[in-house]
Amino acid sequence: MKSDLDRLMAQRDLQALVAVGDETYSAPRDYLTNGAQVTGGLVIKQRGADPVMVVNPMEIEEAAASGLKVYSYHDFGWADLVKEAEGDRSKATVRLWERALRELAVPPGRVGIYGTSDVNVYIDMVNDLNRIDGYTFVGERGLTIFDEAYITKDADELARLKKVAAGTSATLRAAWDYIASHRAQGDTVVRSDGTPLTIGDVKRFVRRTLLDYDLEDTGMIFAQGRDAGFPHSRGQDDQPLRLGQSIIFDLFPREVGGGYYHDVTRTWCIGYASDEVRQTYDTVMQAFQIVMDTYEEPGQPTYVLQEAVLDYYESLGHPTQRSQPNTMSGYVHTLGHGVGLNIHERPSLSHLLRTDTLQVGNALTIEPGLYYPDKGYGVRIEDTVFIDENGQMLTLTDFHKELVIPLEG
Amino acid sequence: MKSDLDRLMAQRDLQALVAVGDETYSAPRDYLTNGAQVTGGLVIKQRGADPVMVVNPMEIEEAAASGLKVYSYHDFGWADLVKEAEGDRSKATVRLWERALRELAVPPGRVGIYGTSDVNVYIDMVNDLNRIDGYTFVGERGLTIFDEAYITKDADELARLKKVAAGTSATLRAAWDYIASHRAQGDTVVRSDGTPLTIGDVKRFVRRTLLDYDLEDTGMIFAQGRDAGFPHSRGQDDQPLRLGQSIIFDLFPREVGGGYYHDVTRTWCIGYASDEVRQTYDTVMQAFQIVMDTYEEPGQPTYVLQEAVLDYYESLGHPTQRSQPNTMSGYVHTLGHGVGLNIHERPSLSHLLRTDTLQVGNALTIEPGLYYPDKGYGVRIEDTVFIDENGQMLTLTDFHKELVIPLEG
Repeated sequence: MKSDLDRLMAQRDLQALVAVGDETYSAPRDYLTNGAQVTGGLVIKQRGADPVMVVNPMEIEEAAASGLKVYSYHDFGWADLVKEAEGDRSKATVRLWERALRELAVPPGRVGIYGTSDVNVYIDMVNDLNRIDGYTFVGERGLTIFDEAYITKDADELARLKKVAAGTSATLRAAWDYIASHRAQGDTVVRSDGTPLTIGDVKRFVRRTLLDYDLEDTGMIFAQGRDAGFPHSRGQDDQPLRLGQSIIFDLFPREVGGGYYHDVTRTWCIGYASDEVRQTYDTVMQAFQIVMDTYEEPGQPTYVLQEAVLDYYESLGHPTQRSQPNTMSGYVHTLGHGVGLNIHERPSLSHLLRTDTLQVGNALTIEPGLYYPDKGYGVRIEDTVFIDENGQMLTLTDFHKELVIPLEG
Repeated sequence: MKSDLDRLMAQRDLQALVAVGDETYSAPRDYLTNGAQVTGGLVIKQRGADPVMVVNPMEIEEAAASGLKVYSYHDFGWADLVKEAEGDRSKATVRLWERALRELAVPPGRVGIYGTSDVNVYIDMVNDLNRIDGYTFVGERGLTIFDEAYITKDADELARLKKVAAGTSATLRAAWDYIASHRAQGDTVVRSDGTPLTIGDVKRFVRRTLLDYDLEDTGMIFAQGRDAGFPHSRGQDDQPLRLGQSIIFDLFPREVGGGYYHDVTRTWCIGYASDEVRQTYDTVMQAFQIVMDTYEEPGQPTYVLQEAVLDYYESLGHPTQRSQPNTMSGYVHTLGHGVGLNIHERPSLSHLLRTDTLQVGNALTIEPGLYYPDKGYGVRIEDTVFIDENGQMLTLTDFHKELVIPLEG
């Protein structure tokens, strides 16, 4: 969690880290600034000290709302720097970094650069930054310092995750009721005027409902029939809802403007389910239960949960990524991932990654699935869970796992 | 525009460019793939050839919808690469890049890396990429190849910009009517039940209305009184709307899920405006008109428009960033910027940048303002305009510029 950052910086021999970002949401910047609504500048965290912000003067009020110490570009003579660089703002920016680090008296040594922004800019800029005397600027891949900190959530973060979970669950409920309020005409779901209810209609309804809870959609999946057989197919907006098709509805909204996520998937059939889909559904539900039963306590490696699912599916003859690494049918993804300011965080629940463990403060998804695109269906069930201070795995998602939506209309 | 890319690559001596991205929206990826809805992988554009996509097998259907040639990680032996790298996916990714470039027979030479993603990953990864025999991987700052291409829009892009403009304008109209439908109690705007109408209420209404046009908010400004005196202060959600205060409403939504933007600002006073705000408003409106009158034809440098505004404001005694570079009062920002898949594109309309010119196919903002935080107000008026094939500057924004919202309730 956030309080681990100094320790993690020491492990990496970082004197400071700089979180960057632009108009695009940048999770490291958000994490360090308590969600400051800025569109540029830098956040400098020296080891053992609170972060400070350096922003465009236009953004000084938004930056101050973070409660952190704020410098304006003016404080480092930005206009002069641009003039000295003959209008080359890239050059001036490097000088600004240097002045800021000197002003903060960051000792010579390694400085990590983190954040979401234009990678082309930083790939290039790091060469110039590394000409600044005394500092070595570095990036990081794999399990980065932020990835490591994100793994466990503190009480404030958990409270926000719970609020997002409640809004997401309420939206699922509303979506179920919305679909159920329609009627069938042949194998198509139609509105009161007889026109088809489309996937686009449902997605629009869901996006609007999320806003009632100050949440924003980040690309939900509502994929029907064959599309549901591909885990990341998002569904086709112009497609009418059909009775009896498996629908994978994967909703992963976040706080408006960027913030904490929730991640949940339900598989629905409207009106009725075929025996085959029902049977697959029961298998996936059983896999979900096996995960809950296999979890024992903090410290347990995550691969144990994934292997329990692999064993179960393989015992029933389903191909998996362990039995057939290139398979596009059967169980084709890992069991889950951490959730926080990013939709995909560590820990990973993969059989290939043997080092991640379950820990108090984790928030993570459990999402077994089975996919048969050639047979025209897919099934996935996903909750976001967390591990409380007693080591218990509890669900954050509060919505039932029924398969069939009966039409009322 | 997009068709310029090969020429721009030749100028930069790039054999290929690779657009990257993750769950976060990446404009270069969108630009090259016609908006493919993927969350990872790479897009490789060799000079003189169409881009190709390399994606996680789960995303192959979404990638195929782009109409581009698609490779799956499996095609390059991803599982074996991960095994060879003993589970180190960072290492395996470098090998995947190498295999993909060889498979596409990209000739030896320079390869540019572009896109929005975790900068720390690419700062680090480029070191390993540069050990691949025959290729030099580079980033780019300043006016990048994508920045240059984005400057002029083709017919498809203009059609999308017009649609976004129409939805945004309709939302402005709805917001005006929404506020107007309320009544006053003392100096506060209240709802029918007598509770105050807050900035948060208005923002929620606006976000919902945008969705009716398949647009999403990306952080609108609705800042009142002193907050309006800071150009990028977003406004405080819990603040009730007050009569007679200047409100800066800056709306810059984009197509849902990432896509083209529109950018518009109106300054509103509810019920009445003070003489001072009214007079400042008239000055800013006059500045806007001066810009329209100063524009002559494509090829004209952008700084000419900015200088016309600077001359006008300074003649009235307002401080500007030319007369007082560090001022926080008066005219404290540049006149405008290009708009496309990014909210801030080139050309820039700055007096400090002497090289940008106005061109057929530009879509850009014109946004003069005046800010007096110490006096408790700010004024900005902004339309997005484009330059058509006849060289005419036409507005995309279709909403009136009245200052005072009369309350009906």
